[in-house]
Amino acid sequence: MSVFTKVSPDQLNAWLKNYAIGSLVELKGIAAGIENTNYFVTTTSGRFVLTLFEKLTADELPFYLKLMAHLAHHGVPCPSPIANNDDEILGALNGKPATLVTCLPGAPVMSPNAAHCALIGATLADMHLAGRSYSLVLEHPRGAAWRRETAPKVMPFLDDDRRSLLSSELEFQDSAPHAGLPRGPIHADLFRDNALWEGTDAAPRLGGVIDFYFAGVDAWLFDVAVTLNDWCVGADGAIDPARAEAMLAAYRAKRAFTNAEVAAWPSMLRAGALRFWLSRLHDFYLPRPGELTHAHDPEHFRRILELRRANAAPLIA
Amino acid sequence: MSVFTKVSPDQLNAWLKNYAIGSLVELKGIAAGIENTNYFVTTTSGRFVLTLFEKLTADELPFYLKLMAHLAHHGVPCPSPIANNDDEILGALNGKPATLVTCLPGAPVMSPNAAHCALIGATLADMHLAGRSYSLVLEHPRGAAWRRETAPKVMPFLDDDRRSLLSSELEFQDSAPHAGLPRGPIHADLFRDNALWEGTDAAPRLGGVIDFYFAGVDAWLFDVAVTLNDWCVGADGAIDPARAEAMLAAYRAKRAFTNAEVAAWPSMLRAGALRFWLSRLHDFYLPRPGELTHAHDPEHFRRILELRRANAAPLIA
Repeated sequence: MSVFTKVSPDQLNAWLKNYAIGSLVELKGIAAGIENTNYFVTTTSGRFVLTLFEKLTADELPFYLKLMAHLAHHGVPCPSPIANNDDEILGALNGKPATLVTCLPGAPVMSPNAAHCALIGATLADMHLAGRSYSLVLEHPRGAAWRRETAPKVMPFLDDDRRSLLSSELEFQDSAPHAGLPRGPIHADLFRDNALWEGTDAAPRLGGVIDFYFAGVDAWLFDVAVTLNDWCVGADGAIDPARAEAMLAAYRAKRAFTNAEVAAWPSMLRAGALRFWLSRLHDFYLPRPGELTHAHDPEHFRRILELRRANAAPLIA
Repeated sequence: MSVFTKVSPDQLNAWLKNYAIGSLVELKGIAAGIENTNYFVTTTSGRFVLTLFEKLTADELPFYLKLMAHLAHHGVPCPSPIANNDDEILGALNGKPATLVTCLPGAPVMSPNAAHCALIGATLADMHLAGRSYSLVLEHPRGAAWRRETAPKVMPFLDDDRRSLLSSELEFQDSAPHAGLPRGPIHADLFRDNALWEGTDAAPRLGGVIDFYFAGVDAWLFDVAVTLNDWCVGADGAIDPARAEAMLAAYRAKRAFTNAEVAAWPSMLRAGALRFWLSRLHDFYLPRPGELTHAHDPEHFRRILELRRANAAPLIA
């Protein structure tokens, strides 16, 4: 349940007086999501999502919100924050930083086919290209620095095999050729549950990409690796060549990979797996106090990491 | 037919390479509209409208396009211009200034009821309030200066009664108490054909307001008068009290009218009628060379003007 902070229709009506979005028709809590409080807000002018931020602060949020506004302004299907009559996209409601964004149509698809993967690949490339003119910078919060900081915290909980795997991979990643790769704002968490779909499996239409609250500036190729590691794999984590090639071909049609990216691809697939193995280990062994456990099984990404270490999938430029 | 400048799918595909909106699925000319060339553009990322400007120039367009972007950013349902990968919302295609905007759902309703009028009134107030933080300025191109310039051109074509009516009304308007009224960006042409609706007559939903290419900075009350003179009248031009009160009550719920506006209302209803009588006279008697005649009958707005002169409808603050 993701309504941590309650909002009543009367409270929202008062808050909406400073917005130009008509008057409230319906207010409804959203069950999905574990980081923020979310409501569907229907007004006479349209449908919106109200988010109250439970952990992120008004210092961190502008990067995320303005990135969404920037991408939406470039036609990328993603939520667009709505400005109030003071021209602000971030306000406060019931003591929490709060924002209203446009509501996208569709629902997640958990068993995507090659058509879904192609659309996700093209949209990811569009996001990267449109992000080139985005001026705010936030270093990717789950990048190399976070990795170095987090690994020692989980290490004591691991058995010998896993400790050895983690140490070995950290050492490998520290010398991986990722420093000079093309970079910019990345979504960094474009899993299947963060894309909404309309249409049919045979002819899917992307309603949009949501949840930019892990975004940051990092190598574009990291975003591709993270996305592929979720969308284009079987239950065992092995890459499905048809879906992987559909995604990469659609991405490549928008932006060709550089030679440096081709060389870095096998190690980047491992970096993408490592990032989620590590965060899931952390959530599993070190849940925040008082937090309901939503921890995903860390083993899924350990298996993916082992597979990527064993088999270096090639990337064509 | 409003495709004055043809665009082929190949030409558009080449142009879209600099946009982050996926790849072209369908391109289809739009029949409505008499000033610009319009196409529906469907891509893998969504539906857009491509407009090639046949008369407006790249000097005049930023005010209109950025106003639409500003209002959409504030949640007003209106087309939102899409930026290309150079971060520009205005480009050139086949020698014409060209822009892509989001495509709104719905269709015009030519026999609106009180529910439609209430939603239009609320949205008009939302536009006015959201426009307060808009920084560009373009003096309303059909304001007092245009009126003074245009009247002598059509005068020679009029019979004695109409000439006398026009002279008398111009003189009256020059001394009307409109100078100090609250002002800002106004749509200035929010007729029934510039609003798109979904839903039913009993429960209409406003898809959005389109065609901002007569917008400018002028008295908000002028916008209300122009809108009411089209939405809340019978075929004879007489005000329908139920629809008029629905529109004004919804507007007022968002923004109370000032005492000066209440005093100016009867003369402003006349100013709104005069503006369209004059432009229709001009289009009728002085069509641009080579132009197909789309001229509306000027008499409709002459009758509205006569009615507003005879009956001063009150406005409650």
